[in-house]
Amino acid sequence: MVIKMNEHIGKQTVIFEKPPIIRGTSSIVGAKEGKGPLSEYFDYVLDDDKWGEETWEKAESKLQKETAQTAIKKAKLTPYDINYILAGDLLNQCIGAHYGMRDLGIPFFGLYGACSTMVESMSIGAMIVSGNCAENVVCTTSSHYCAAEKQFRLPLEYGGQRTPTSQWTVTGSGSAVISKNGVGPKITHITTGKIIDMGISDLNNMGAAMAPAAADTLCAHFKDTGLRPEDYDLILTGDLGVVGSDILVELMMGEGYDIAELHNDCGKMIFDIEKQDVHAGGSGCGCCGSVFCGYVYQKLKEKEYDNVLVMATGALMNPQIINSGETIPGIAHAIAIRA
Amino acid sequence: MVIKMNEHIGKQTVIFEKPPIIRGTSSIVGAKEGKGPLSEYFDYVLDDDKWGEETWEKAESKLQKETAQTAIKKAKLTPYDINYILAGDLLNQCIGAHYGMRDLGIPFFGLYGACSTMVESMSIGAMIVSGNCAENVVCTTSSHYCAAEKQFRLPLEYGGQRTPTSQWTVTGSGSAVISKNGVGPKITHITTGKIIDMGISDLNNMGAAMAPAAADTLCAHFKDTGLRPEDYDLILTGDLGVVGSDILVELMMGEGYDIAELHNDCGKMIFDIEKQDVHAGGSGCGCCGSVFCGYVYQKLKEKEYDNVLVMATGALMNPQIINSGETIPGIAHAIAIRA
Repeated sequence: MVIKMNEHIGKQTVIFEKPPIIRGTSSIVGAKEGKGPLSEYFDYVLDDDKWGEETWEKAESKLQKETAQTAIKKAKLTPYDINYILAGDLLNQCIGAHYGMRDLGIPFFGLYGACSTMVESMSIGAMIVSGNCAENVVCTTSSHYCAAEKQFRLPLEYGGQRTPTSQWTVTGSGSAVISKNGVGPKITHITTGKIIDMGISDLNNMGAAMAPAAADTLCAHFKDTGLRPEDYDLILTGDLGVVGSDILVELMMGEGYDIAELHNDCGKMIFDIEKQDVHAGGSGCGCCGSVFCGYVYQKLKEKEYDNVLVMATGALMNPQIINSGETIPGIAHAIAIRA
Repeated sequence: MVIKMNEHIGKQTVIFEKPPIIRGTSSIVGAKEGKGPLSEYFDYVLDDDKWGEETWEKAESKLQKETAQTAIKKAKLTPYDINYILAGDLLNQCIGAHYGMRDLGIPFFGLYGACSTMVESMSIGAMIVSGNCAENVVCTTSSHYCAAEKQFRLPLEYGGQRTPTSQWTVTGSGSAVISKNGVGPKITHITTGKIIDMGISDLNNMGAAMAPAAADTLCAHFKDTGLRPEDYDLILTGDLGVVGSDILVELMMGEGYDIAELHNDCGKMIFDIEKQDVHAGGSGCGCCGSVFCGYVYQKLKEKEYDNVLVMATGALMNPQIINSGETIPGIAHAIAIRA
């Protein structure tokens, strides 16, 4: 099939005529993440998760600003070359992104996709670049363990017992520069998720809440494109953790796709699950952000991976609405990347 | 100048080769807004701002769902024809959009631009459609007075005195369908704002916090395109209100642009400022959403306006970070529409 223009194929997928290029990335993580197995792949590991700032929220903003600036440098560009920043985070009203990007002087679009934001931003960024509306865009997300615990769960000082299915919000940020021209891995397809709510209401079991959305998007990707799991070297999810990953593999098996050997999850990769006491694994926008922009991007550049599907998952609730009896809507967005 | 493709011109503006079409819109507002001067232009006015739901937040979700569905119908399309929903609101983690759009089964991108979200969503939607990544997208925003007061200020029951510069969050929602084909007003340009923070920290003076961002984007639009204020019949801002509007007109005069006779503001138009006791006027995502999707769209269709610049403004803070001593970053995004 010769494709002359970008094309929205099937129901949820765009295939790019001229695939946008991921020209450079940057990742910074907190001290605990720096003690995990991917330590060497991050640009910088914090000693202190406040990073010299007065509050965790301000430290999170600094994470976004620094990864964005570093990604621009690593892409051999200047802020002046960037047409748009697309960024978001988990904090109320996305203040991580807004205060982080405030001084950069670059046109800004704020996104909220919970932990799916890294791939949401790269999906929209790829469409903007491929449609000739920009030369270069920066896509950024972050999360901060202390700020997220305080906002979504309990003050750290409370020292509450965590349930076995709970995940550990990653302190970290990832930024990717997506460009029309240059050298780097290419985004060939995007498959955008629908909101899927299967009735999970346990705030300490996000993996289970998000796994059906991941399965839905993954099936849509295979149906829309005609591709099969074995066309990828790696099918990477954002932060399903141990519990959600098992559910995803099982749901996909039920749909006739065996992904067990090809699948991994950023939330399982960033920590040593057994030794670092993170229960079901990592989570947060910064989990997929830092693992993709750190480890996975490096492996794509080294051509250790040729074809990777990156699918970030998000839980779209807030604690107040769950406390009022609602269930957790999930979402998952996928991008296919060729080295 | 013959433009062959979409083009990112100047620093912040895209000019569309084949301008995307605003094929249909819908707007619903609360009871107070229904008593204002634009009452007849809205599709529906609520009797009770809870609209049969248990909470204000759920009523806000219902506003989004209903305007999205109505806009799709008015565009003579079905949900199956829609490739993406782009939506956001003011509530923590954008639950207005997430719970509202949960049942529609349409690929979803969540946005957070505070009160700039209506134009943010239409800007991204126009780029996606013009880049052949979608046939039709739905752009939706909402706000709810009671939910916003509770979250950003004080419980309604407290009955606090409002300052003269404070604005009244609109209960309302607007949805617009942007399409590659069909009949309707066209989006010719978008000019996307940078984050601008001039040091205002008064949560009850959002107009002053956002006006510098509006001036910055408006100047960028004129510089990038070579257009002048008099090329428009109306330069519409989202919700600067009375205070912010006066500041914008003055700032623009300082830059050599006299917009006094051409400018109006959704926050001034939706209420009878004197009689409805709203102090400096309306605000909230639903202000620009309902006024644009109701009144302005109707006037464009009737060709009473030929050329309109719609510029929604947002204040990108949350109350906690302002209470910790921070100032309010503002943003403004503009789209140029030709009847």
